[in-house]
Amino acid sequence: MATIVCDVNETLLDLAGLDGPFTEAFCERAEEVKRLWFARLLHTSTVMTTVGTWQDFGVVARTVLRDTADRLGLPLEDAQAGDLVGGMRRLRAHPDVVDGIAALVGAGHRVVALTNSGQATAEAQLAHAGLDVLLDRILSVDPTLRFKPDPAVYAHAADELGAKPGDLVMVAAHDWDCAGAMRCGWRSGFVSRPGQTYNPLLQPPTWRAPDLLALATAIGDGR
Amino acid sequence: MATIVCDVNETLLDLAGLDGPFTEAFCERAEEVKRLWFARLLHTSTVMTTVGTWQDFGVVARTVLRDTADRLGLPLEDAQAGDLVGGMRRLRAHPDVVDGIAALVGAGHRVVALTNSGQATAEAQLAHAGLDVLLDRILSVDPTLRFKPDPAVYAHAADELGAKPGDLVMVAAHDWDCAGAMRCGWRSGFVSRPGQTYNPLLQPPTWRAPDLLALATAIGDGR
Repeated sequence: MATIVCDVNETLLDLAGLDGPFTEAFCERAEEVKRLWFARLLHTSTVMTTVGTWQDFGVVARTVLRDTADRLGLPLEDAQAGDLVGGMRRLRAHPDVVDGIAALVGAGHRVVALTNSGQATAEAQLAHAGLDVLLDRILSVDPTLRFKPDPAVYAHAADELGAKPGDLVMVAAHDWDCAGAMRCGWRSGFVSRPGQTYNPLLQPPTWRAPDLLALATAIGDGR
Repeated sequence: MATIVCDVNETLLDLAGLDGPFTEAFCERAEEVKRLWFARLLHTSTVMTTVGTWQDFGVVARTVLRDTADRLGLPLEDAQAGDLVGGMRRLRAHPDVVDGIAALVGAGHRVVALTNSGQATAEAQLAHAGLDVLLDRILSVDPTLRFKPDPAVYAHAADELGAKPGDLVMVAAHDWDCAGAMRCGWRSGFVSRPGQTYNPLLQPPTWRAPDLLALATAIGDGR
């Protein structure tokens, strides 16, 4: 029995929900913009933590999207950037997620969420996707004024959950989230969603599987 | 009078030198691959520092390039990735750099380099570009086993240079490098090279200018 801590964006929720609006805004360059935006968003949030500044993840997402469009020479109004980023509140769960959470709960685990999204955004996202009722807790990085993979975030989550690091499993479609949690003594499960790979230079995850249901099987009773 | 600490890749040296080889490898997607690769390289190096792992920057660059090609579904052999990243040793200086360094030295400043590149790579890069003879010191992050913008790197550089933070100016085409140094009490000069922007969520730089020569004028005697 363990506490399974699930990342939200890309791990539980499918960013493909942004494809329509991005295609409307950027036509044939939509996929390129989306990829570059998200890579730069992750870099920027990590840098902000390293240099000791803070803003809500949604504000960072909007700022970086505007800037990414600028750098590519693509026009984008502030309001339009806000609409596109607002689409993150209306994502669907990946099709394996409901069964995956059920399997984890069935095996006796407690399942919670831990996200870089702000608390209100995270709650709206998971309610829209119908996952809020399946999760024991929804935790945001907000109280730490830092972003994952900073150690302070995992320490805060462990504290909130009243769990020892060895009883916690970070489940994410991002290698950096798994590695960050493992640095704090957690175990980790990597969900290798399409397009997600695990950097061989980082500590490998404890478990890995292509989706959450398969990962639940791999984790078993978590021993 | 101050010690002017210049970043190397993109700040002194022009990554446009990679355009030919990238176009050979990726045809019409070369620019997209290069942008995404560099954004993911910066994210990955920052993450590695946050989670406490280390590898030479060139190894990280090669690994992330292979992985970026994979994610985009573009074929790339290991050897080819090595050749492309090896091209970073043969970049030219931006056309304003020699005059910019001369102007800074003429104003009485000491001018040095501080880079995420490994020591041997940095020396080869700056020798190839003819800048080694103009620089007082070439410092790499190597001894710290961390990457910029981690505070330990700037502390190490200050120590090596025997300078107080207030007498140091980080000069970079990257907002995260300026902000990282400022967090450590340094001042900073942002070189707004084409395609480089300064994230408004980060502490603004002390000075900013479109190239190194203009920045030297802006800095003046550094008071």
